[in-house]
Amino acid sequence: MTRYVVDVMPKREILDPQGKAVLGALPRLGFEGVSDVRQGKRFEIEVDGDADDQRLDEVRRMAETLLANPVIEYYTVTADETQGDG
Amino acid sequence: MTRYVVDVMPKREILDPQGKAVLGALPRLGFEGVSDVRQGKRFEIEVDGDADDQRLDEVRRMAETLLANPVIEYYTVTADETQGDG
Repeated sequence: MTRYVVDVMPKREILDPQGKAVLGALPRLGFEGVSDVRQGKRFEIEVDGDADDQRLDEVRRMAETLLANPVIEYYTVTADETQGDG
Repeated sequence: MTRYVVDVMPKREILDPQGKAVLGALPRLGFEGVSDVRQGKRFEIEVDGDADDQRLDEVRRMAETLLANPVIEYYTVTADETQGDG
């Protein structure tokens, strides 16, 4: 079992209303000195078997096909060695 | 300027309908061998000044207060050294 993490974020040139809402709320809650907030998505994907290049490529195709909209979002895929939980 | 990353994920015992929807869609798209998907949020927060413990604590308080619901979600805060963009 291998866990991959896919991070999906809005591209810099794309308006991010969720991030702007957080940015606007922070001073009202007493947090100063924050100049920008971007909000995106994080996926943790458990795949059978050990991490290898073929599975990494497959997770990248999942991101491209289903998890991200490549027109307005960029994504990064990493194998998660920690397997942490909360 | 320092960028902090806050990852917010649903706790294991909490139902995650978005993750389940992705998990259900993957085989229909031809992706096999995925046993679980969890979907959460990722925030990139740009804070004035250099990274230090005080700012890290402040970003943790932001996560606790505004970004995560600690009853059903857990969060991790990390200083992002890469400052990468897409």
